[in-house]
Amino acid sequence: MRATIMPKAHDVRIDNVPDAAIQQPTDALIRVTRACICGSDLWPYNGGPNVEGQRMGHEAIGVVEDVGSDVQRIKRGEVVIMPFANSDGTCMFCDEGLQTACVHVDFFGNGKLDGAQAEAMRIPYADGTLYPLNVSEDDALMPSLLTLSDVMGTGHHAAVAARVRRGGSVAVVGDGAVGLCGVIAAKRLGAEQIIIMGRHEVRLALAKEFGATDVVSERGEEGIQRVRELTQGFGVQSVLECVGTEQAIDTSMGIVRAGGAVGRVGVPHYEAIKGAQVMFYRNVIVAGGPAPTRAYIDELLPEVMDGRIDPGRVFDRTVGLDGVPDGYRAMNEREALKVLIRP
Amino acid sequence: MRATIMPKAHDVRIDNVPDAAIQQPTDALIRVTRACICGSDLWPYNGGPNVEGQRMGHEAIGVVEDVGSDVQRIKRGEVVIMPFANSDGTCMFCDEGLQTACVHVDFFGNGKLDGAQAEAMRIPYADGTLYPLNVSEDDALMPSLLTLSDVMGTGHHAAVAARVRRGGSVAVVGDGAVGLCGVIAAKRLGAEQIIIMGRHEVRLALAKEFGATDVVSERGEEGIQRVRELTQGFGVQSVLECVGTEQAIDTSMGIVRAGGAVGRVGVPHYEAIKGAQVMFYRNVIVAGGPAPTRAYIDELLPEVMDGRIDPGRVFDRTVGLDGVPDGYRAMNEREALKVLIRP
Repeated sequence: MRATIMPKAHDVRIDNVPDAAIQQPTDALIRVTRACICGSDLWPYNGGPNVEGQRMGHEAIGVVEDVGSDVQRIKRGEVVIMPFANSDGTCMFCDEGLQTACVHVDFFGNGKLDGAQAEAMRIPYADGTLYPLNVSEDDALMPSLLTLSDVMGTGHHAAVAARVRRGGSVAVVGDGAVGLCGVIAAKRLGAEQIIIMGRHEVRLALAKEFGATDVVSERGEEGIQRVRELTQGFGVQSVLECVGTEQAIDTSMGIVRAGGAVGRVGVPHYEAIKGAQVMFYRNVIVAGGPAPTRAYIDELLPEVMDGRIDPGRVFDRTVGLDGVPDGYRAMNEREALKVLIRP
Repeated sequence: MRATIMPKAHDVRIDNVPDAAIQQPTDALIRVTRACICGSDLWPYNGGPNVEGQRMGHEAIGVVEDVGSDVQRIKRGEVVIMPFANSDGTCMFCDEGLQTACVHVDFFGNGKLDGAQAEAMRIPYADGTLYPLNVSEDDALMPSLLTLSDVMGTGHHAAVAARVRRGGSVAVVGDGAVGLCGVIAAKRLGAEQIIIMGRHEVRLALAKEFGATDVVSERGEEGIQRVRELTQGFGVQSVLECVGTEQAIDTSMGIVRAGGAVGRVGVPHYEAIKGAQVMFYRNVIVAGGPAPTRAYIDELLPEVMDGRIDPGRVFDRTVGLDGVPDGYRAMNEREALKVLIRP
């Protein structure tokens, strides 16, 4: 079968690899009908840690082709969402809704598991991992449904970790797909003021359509001052940190109000959270991490199905597998916001 | 009047100072009937930052002697708890129950405001700051009532920040008065497993009486391993960090479970929270800061009054003002756990 491989930075290839196949009785095999490229795929693309023979892609919707002998809930022929991490569905962390801490967790596209930017995938712990949908494989809602695999769930996780409250003030750091989904999440949780921090006009326009009330395009100390001006000098109650750079976390800590919370979902490219004393004296909370998107589908799916939220609008380009390498280039150059793949 | 001054490290004096007096119409004047020495007083005692002419003490119960012309709620003759920080009671932070972020907040005994280890004090924003009690000034519950000024409220804040839950697992880092109150707080919030980390036998025995289920006396990596052994290798859901040293926060981050929370109430003597990536991948929350003890009195007072909790047991020595310098020495040498003062 064909799959996306990234042997080294800036080298994305569609290669022939051994066909995905059931290996464990708890596995399922899916034919990938929709996948996409994630902002986090750009870290290895730009020289971040590369795993030998790395299979790329961790967001997918697919059709179940086969299931192992111990799979009970998931059936052949079902259309399923594949969250970006597998989870057994039975351990105490899964019970608590933190599937990304499952005792059997692993991440798709990490070199050990199959990648989603491919024709097919083996899915470990299929019963715990996959979420069956009641739609046909080419339903018009596919782009929005696909975001429940990662970016919409991740934006929601940022909002939950940042304790977004009804009537509250929010800043979203980053105008990528996750940041934009963070705006949707903050809006649906009832935030009154939603400040988007970014510089890309098309994305900022979309953020406004999603519910952003203010735009701050300044960076660093200037950006912090601007947010403070917009919040009577206090900062916001909730910061959704959707980038992961040191500048992004520094900005987040600078714009959060006393008693407020920073929800981090950008994969951190820094070693320590500075300002431990200021954070203490202001009773600031820092939370977040890999989103248990599997847990959030129950809450978000009905709103996707009835059109109350439309996170699929973050996709502005669709390619086949052959178009994936250029999709990486386009996202990396910020020419495309998020690339949908129909393998 | 007489008050406690600490001009420099290891130099605690009882000096004559100008009588406390009303300065603003929102002030009250109290005669201090009970005060105490705090673990945090030992930081400047041991060379931490010293403020010129620093008045010491931030925990008190007193009798209102006089009130300014704008004071409406607090009356002359009332017995009142003085939380360790003043608060106006009207700003948005006070409204939210985070009085330690009040727009007019200041800390008693900080060199700008009067200290509590004295005969009398001026109390700014008396209506917002003071909490009137319905007891006589020598009620037998005075030791426990006094802890609502700081240590019991602070232990409770650690538990709230660490999201202690019914049936949950908790570790309390530190066997000082705040740590012991943290055990009380965790117990009353329904924690099932409460691990106290400390080495002082008398204090650990008291921790057990307060509800601790396990004791870990090892430190550093060894202590972390020991807590993990006690928690099936996972760590605890809630860590109450009641010390403030770099070792204490490192230990806290090492023993918290994925999805768990560290509630910091030890004044931090470190600049950054290390392990920002591990913290992220494990979805660990870090929260806490100066406790809004004013807000917690409503919840804790009834349990003190009816004897359900007895945090006053942390006091193991009582002195008059003349005994204060030796009280510092005794607490510093861990000969006394917490020293009560009857000025």
